[in-house]
Amino acid sequence: MKVTFLGTGAGLPSKQRNVSSVALHLLKDEGAIWLFDCGEATQHQILYTTLKPRKIEKIFITHLHGDHIYGLPGLLSSRSFQEGSSPLTIFGPKGLDQFIETSLNVSQTKLQYPIQFVEIFDGYQLVEADYTVDVIKLDHGIDSFGYRLTEHDQIGELQVDRLKALGIQPGPIYQQIKQNEVTELADGREIARADVVGPDKKGRKLAIFGDTRFPYRFEKFVKGVDLLIHEATFDGADQNLANQYYHSSNVEVAQLAKNANVNQLVLTHLSARYQDQNLREFLQEAQAIFAKTTVAKDFLTIEIPKATR
Amino acid sequence: MKVTFLGTGAGLPSKQRNVSSVALHLLKDEGAIWLFDCGEATQHQILYTTLKPRKIEKIFITHLHGDHIYGLPGLLSSRSFQEGSSPLTIFGPKGLDQFIETSLNVSQTKLQYPIQFVEIFDGYQLVEADYTVDVIKLDHGIDSFGYRLTEHDQIGELQVDRLKALGIQPGPIYQQIKQNEVTELADGREIARADVVGPDKKGRKLAIFGDTRFPYRFEKFVKGVDLLIHEATFDGADQNLANQYYHSSNVEVAQLAKNANVNQLVLTHLSARYQDQNLREFLQEAQAIFAKTTVAKDFLTIEIPKATR
Repeated sequence: MKVTFLGTGAGLPSKQRNVSSVALHLLKDEGAIWLFDCGEATQHQILYTTLKPRKIEKIFITHLHGDHIYGLPGLLSSRSFQEGSSPLTIFGPKGLDQFIETSLNVSQTKLQYPIQFVEIFDGYQLVEADYTVDVIKLDHGIDSFGYRLTEHDQIGELQVDRLKALGIQPGPIYQQIKQNEVTELADGREIARADVVGPDKKGRKLAIFGDTRFPYRFEKFVKGVDLLIHEATFDGADQNLANQYYHSSNVEVAQLAKNANVNQLVLTHLSARYQDQNLREFLQEAQAIFAKTTVAKDFLTIEIPKATR
Repeated sequence: MKVTFLGTGAGLPSKQRNVSSVALHLLKDEGAIWLFDCGEATQHQILYTTLKPRKIEKIFITHLHGDHIYGLPGLLSSRSFQEGSSPLTIFGPKGLDQFIETSLNVSQTKLQYPIQFVEIFDGYQLVEADYTVDVIKLDHGIDSFGYRLTEHDQIGELQVDRLKALGIQPGPIYQQIKQNEVTELADGREIARADVVGPDKKGRKLAIFGDTRFPYRFEKFVKGVDLLIHEATFDGADQNLANQYYHSSNVEVAQLAKNANVNQLVLTHLSARYQDQNLREFLQEAQAIFAKTTVAKDFLTIEIPKATR
């Protein structure tokens, strides 16, 4: 599982940073991608990656500000042109369907695949075979939400030594034993999976937040996640601006990461004022509070290691 | 007067060509810009030019396909963020206002300047102090239009020799003589402007077309223009594809330019299939019919010289 930042700037595109989008590569299900936010020219950014629009199977929108959604009509159209035929589900706040449907209708765009809209709300939960996604409402003036993705724990590795000690030699039977709680052998013996596998492989947790002020209030929701991706539009010196414009500072978010004991923090959605020396100070200010902090830049890719806790 | 191509590709953005937009620099009125079409990421392209969004005073949309309009909401928002406060008029087919208003409303974007929508139709005419814009309906499946801009003729240069021969020495009086049909001198003589200026300076003509098939039918509309900017999505070998998808080929458009006796032709809106050797052949095929043909590329700027005819 890894994430690629497609846009890491606040409000307006600049030469350095496009507006918001993050791609989550699940690295299973034939390379499925889940996209979080889709600012204008997200499809243009994708041209400079190995991502294929047709591999995007879900899009999660945090809030409806233009720098988070104006790339949707173009991306949806291009996904269709480029032979995307599989269904797409789009999660987001009320009103998103109106924006997309009007854009597609006015431009007489007929997609070659079905779209489903899911309206999210505080406490919304999506449970899939391998993942659960939870939603929390933030504080941004406009309805804005944070997403937490929890990978389900997976059954541990088969303990080959133990199987061999039971006289069971490697072969297709191993796969059966792993897939079923109890497997009956040819000789009539019943093998309980629990007796022959190691400990569960813990699933990873990832939180991707929309714009918000006063982030410290969401500590419980992000408790112990492996990766927290959070906006930090301003630095500590501009805390008042952050509060006034319903945004977060690097200092607040680093404090949240520390309090919530997350494993790794990535700050994104930076104001264009942070460049060069300013940007280095922006990072240092956060790292002084929470050491495992990274500042995102466009096209940064981060692997999320298998959870070890 | 000059034009800058901001996007010259057909349908989808590519690394080489963004989707459609052309900026017309009027080079008067404090650097006013008129924009023709506004595909996604037009505002991103503008970042790599000296254009200022707040200088855009009119936007003309040829048709509502996404690759011609999806950049509007972002550009309008950024124009507002970047201290654009002057009114903006947007000309386009029926439905354009719905797309823009829905986009701005859903994203709760409040612009700091007024927008006026003008719905165009076949035969629509806009008459301004210095320019007239005429509209013609094309043939593209969806309503699609061509624009022709006619710069009004301007009064010729003052003939200084003639003024001096009349005993009128250079000074503020020269400006008065040029600005008024008749000027009374201090000594009581009346000077008719027509007697002391050279021939009118002929205004320039420029045509910018939306997507269309069978372009030869619009010869009369583009007769003698100084510059014709026309889509050529396909080449002569793919004339059938052009017809089928309601587009033009380079061959057809070059023939139109020749028949209409235009001064200069720029082909744009090229399919991504034309690159390198293909692209050179694409140009040669058109130039064999109409020599003064150029193939646009992103950021190409073309001066439109003062008309000499």
